[in-house]
Order: sequence, then C-alpha cells, then structure tokens
Amino acid sequence: MPPGEFELIERFFTGRGAARADVRLSVGDDAAILRPRPGAELVLALDTVVSGVHFPADMNGRFVGHRVLAVNLSDIAAMGAEPAWALLGLTLPVADENWLGDFASGLDDLARRFGVALVGGDTTRGPLTVSLALAGWVPAGQALRRAGARPGDELWVSGTLGDAGAGLAILQGRLTGGGAAREELLRRFLLPEPRVTLGQALRGVATACIDVSDGLAGDLGKLCRAGSVGARLDAAELPRSEALLATAGKQAAMRFALSAGDDYELLWSAPPSARPRIESLGADLPVSCIGAITAASGLQLRGAELERDAAHGFDHFGG
Amino acid sequence: MPPGEFELIERFFTGRGAARADVRLSVGDDAAILRPRPGAELVLALDTVVSGVHFPADMNGRFVGHRVLAVNLSDIAAMGAEPAWALLGLTLPVADENWLGDFASGLDDLARRFGVALVGGDTTRGPLTVSLALAGWVPAGQALRRAGARPGDELWVSGTLGDAGAGLAILQGRLTGGGAAREELLRRFLLPEPRVTLGQALRGVATACIDVSDGLAGDLGKLCRAGSVGARLDAAELPRSEALLATAGKQAAMRFALSAGDDYELLWSAPPSARPRIESLGADLPVSCIGAITAASGLQLRGAELERDAAHGFDHFGG
Repeated sequence: MPPGEFELIERFFTGRGAARADVRLSVGDDAAILRPRPGAELVLALDTVVSGVHFPADMNGRFVGHRVLAVNLSDIAAMGAEPAWALLGLTLPVADENWLGDFASGLDDLARRFGVALVGGDTTRGPLTVSLALAGWVPAGQALRRAGARPGDELWVSGTLGDAGAGLAILQGRLTGGGAAREELLRRFLLPEPRVTLGQALRGVATACIDVSDGLAGDLGKLCRAGSVGARLDAAELPRSEALLATAGKQAAMRFALSAGDDYELLWSAPPSARPRIESLGADLPVSCIGAITAASGLQLRGAELERDAAHGFDHFGG
Repeated sequence: MPPGEFELIERFFTGRGAARADVRLSVGDDAAILRPRPGAELVLALDTVVSGVHFPADMNGRFVGHRVLAVNLSDIAAMGAEPAWALLGLTLPVADENWLGDFASGLDDLARRFGVALVGGDTTRGPLTVSLALAGWVPAGQALRRAGARPGDELWVSGTLGDAGAGLAILQGRLTGGGAAREELLRRFLLPEPRVTLGQALRGVATACIDVSDGLAGDLGKLCRAGSVGARLDAAELPRSEALLATAGKQAAMRFALSAGDDYELLWSAPPSARPRIESLGADLPVSCIGAITAASGLQLRGAELERDAAHGFDHFGG
C-alpha cells in the first residue's frame, strides 16, 4: 500500500483491545514481546474469515471485526483457556476509512470485554480476508481437548443451537422472519458470543470439549473420532430457541440445530457424576444434556422426524 | 470446503516442520498447547502474503510456502529471538493436490531448518492468501527493537541489497539477465533466507534492529523514527552483489539496493566499540557498515549519483 494509506491503517489498530501489564512491546515493531504466565501453558489458535465465504460481502465492518475475534475466542474457550493477546492479518482491497473504523470498533469492543490486547499483525492489499491469531493461558495440564470422551459420559451443549444458521438464512433470503425473533436470530449470526467463561469453568469437569462452529453433527463427529468413541443424541433435548421455532417451524428448526454452523456454543462430555456441578454453571447461560457417549463408533440420533439429508452424518435416525 | 477436501488438506499439514518436545498438542484440535521456556519472553509475529501482491499469481507453491514462513522468521530474527511454533492460515480457491504438496514441502523444509513446528491453523476457501503466525522465545529483557539507535552509532546491514528486487524485476520482464547471475537473483527473490542466527548473535550488541522487507530507505526510516534519530548513508558502502551489478548495471543496482524490497536482510545500529564483535559475526554472512546514526532527523545519502526518484525518502543526495 502507499505509505499514507499504511499509516492511516496502522493508526486504526494501535492501542486496541484491553491494556495488559504483560505486554512489553505492542503494535509497531517487527513482532510483539509478551511476558509468559508462571505455571501456565500457552494456547495458540488462528482462524481466518473470508468475505463471501464466512460472511456476506456487504456485511458491516463492525461485524467482521467482531467475528474474526469471536471465532478465535471460541477456540480458546473450547480449550478452557484464558485469552490474552491477538495479532491481526487484515487483507483488504481499499483502505476505506469508514469500514476500517467500524472493523476496528467491532474488534476493540469484544477484545476489551475479554481482556485481550491487540499486539501486532499485518495489513496488506488484496481480496477481503481476515486472519487472527490468538494466544492465551491455561494452568499446566488442565487444558480441555477434543480427545478424552469416554463411553457412558453424558453429552452437553451450551445455549441454543441453530439460531445463527437461521440468522444467515434470513440474511440470504432463504428464510423469512419478523419482529423480535428475526432480530434475535440475526444477532446470533452477526455477533456470535464466545463461551469463554464457561470453557474455563469446565476445566476439571469436562472429559472432552469442542466448539460448535461447523454444525452439531460435524463437530460432534470430530469429538467422537478424536476419542475413538461414538455418541447417541436425543433429538428432543436439543436446545432450540423460541425465536428459531417461531421463525423456522419445528422441522426446519431441528435441521438448523443439527447441522447449521456459526453457533459457537460449546459441546462437551462429562461423567454423570459431574451433572450437579454442570447444572450449577447454567445460571447465566443454559446448558443442556443432549445425549451420551457410546463405545460403538458412529452417531445415532433418536426421536427426530427428518428428511434424510437433514441428518447427514448420522448412522440412524427417526424412531 | 466439502469434508473430503478439508481432510485432504489437513493431511498435508499434520506433522510438518520440526518435532519439538515443548509441543503438548499440535494440529487437529481447536488450538495448540505449548510449553513456555523458563526465563524467556514470548515473541509473536504475524505476516500475510497475497497472490499477485507479494508474489506472482503463477508462482510455484513451494516458493509460496517458503515465503510465508521466511517473512515471519525474518521478523523473529529482527527481534533477536529463537523461532519455535507456527500456525498457518491458508485461503485458497481450489484444493489442488500438486500445489498443496509443493506448498507444504516449501514450508516444511524451511521449518525444519530453523527448528519450527507447525502446530495449527486454518484452511479456508477463497482468493489465494496466506497468513502465518510465528511464536519464538528471547531471554527476558534481551529482545532487539526498532527503537534504541543513538547518535554516533554505526549502521550495519547483512548480506547484499537489491538482489531480490532485481529477481522480481526479471520475473516481471522489467529486467533482463542471463546465466548464473540471473539464477542467483531469481533465487534471492524466490527463496529469501531469514537471518535468524545473526539476529540472535546481535543480542547485547545492536542498539536497534529491523529487517529490510520494504527496501532500505523505507525500513531505515522506520528505525530512525522509532528512535527519534536520523541517519547518514554512504552509498559507496552499500553491499551490492556481482550478480546485481552485472545484470542491472551500476546505476540501477544502486536504485535496487536503496529502495527495492524483499531482501530480508537485517539492518541494525551499534556503537563503534562493537565493531570488532560485529565483524567477527561476518564469517558465514558478510556484514557491512553503511553509515551512521545522526542526532538530526531525516535520512542523508552521500556519494550516489541517482535520478531523483531513486532516492525517495532521503533529504539530500549526490556529491
């Protein structure tokens, strides 16, 4: 980029996010210098969002800035870690000051809420693509992983499923809705809320954990493969919001809850003995037991009446 | 991406780079888990390379894989740090197995040479854009920074300048060359060599350091602004390779050395008393004293006969 543009952009990303005492050198050098936390292990994630693929090309910059941090916070949450520092790789076709201001605000607001400092990165010209690397800390040996689920464990999920997928469908004209329900579904897609506090509370409780980013069926499949186990889902227990049910109807709501992405809820396994402790976590955010881990591999779905393609990824369904 | 493609791609990036005992969890979970180094500070960089902007769109995947790691290694080198772990954000339009194989090989070869493990990241569909985050370690308080140059310090650079810019000019048909010189210039552009060992050797020696990625004039300007100082460059001392001089001629060689990017040499300041120690570092890689830091701000260039635009960024030139 021309030097003027570059400096304009750099200005947008200096001092963003939380102020942290463990940042020794931030934006503006070749790299950031950061103070580790004694007794903790480092957790590192990197996720990319692409215009027209992960979000509509005309989406307001605020939602793009929120999104790229939220998806990485969700990864850190799924590890049970505490987020600390972010580096941004922003590729954009033109340095549009309004768009950049919105983007930086969206990123900044979410970063402050979760105590994350933006400590570096890179701005380049090209098709709108945003990568963000996020570093966090977890007490040594206590991180949650995808592997670890055991037969007999119960399967839990936070919040409600399918809302973000329905929100995207509304944005794309594939679903119609109105009123407060429509607003709620749009908000779930546009401003995903990473479950960072919950993830940390699940340390020592969950035997395995993953975030639901690609859809319940797909992400449950990953958790099961990582642990060489299978799972049984009780369709009736899948948490679906009133907004989703009112807007999409019962059958489509089940389809969204099973296979739509972008919810960024946490999905985890835990022994039945952990139930009281898990239920006590649900004060601020509902948590639902939706099934159990099985020794036999594969995913079974009970109690749903679905078109065949809506249960893609499951071995058995119906009944 | 369709699940099949995604798994294909994941296969390309599992087990890449060096095996490291401090990696507790690598590619395949929501984030990587890494063991910090006692007494050290964490150094984090993120750089993006975009097809058609940072490299020609038809460049072999091997060179793209090498490049995205090399530019980040160069940032870590400029901090005097030791690289450890990388996360890759690869956005590509189609999962071309040949291209992916080449890309993964280029990344892998360079990563192994510098002891870097690829521990995670994200693969997405979209226009070819590659971000990489690189983490490394530096003994607490010993990192090199852009700020710190003092009036009277000598100014040093590693290797030779302008070769990569001439190599790019050859690729783009703006410069013609032949024989071994042409090959050498192309190699300098296609396979940049980050100065990681030199950067570490400059801890406790250099007062300030930056890598030459955007061109000497621009990067020297950044080093000077960071330290609120100026600099005087002696044109006759700028290290130019035989390959560059033979291919571009004396005047164009000076222009490439002053303002072409992509060399990824290190540029640093040090007190005159450090000269013997710095000269002793030049056994494997030439190092050249090219000027001095001044109290007055701005960049002065002495001894070059140039068209005016070739000395962009300098206050005075010629004579």
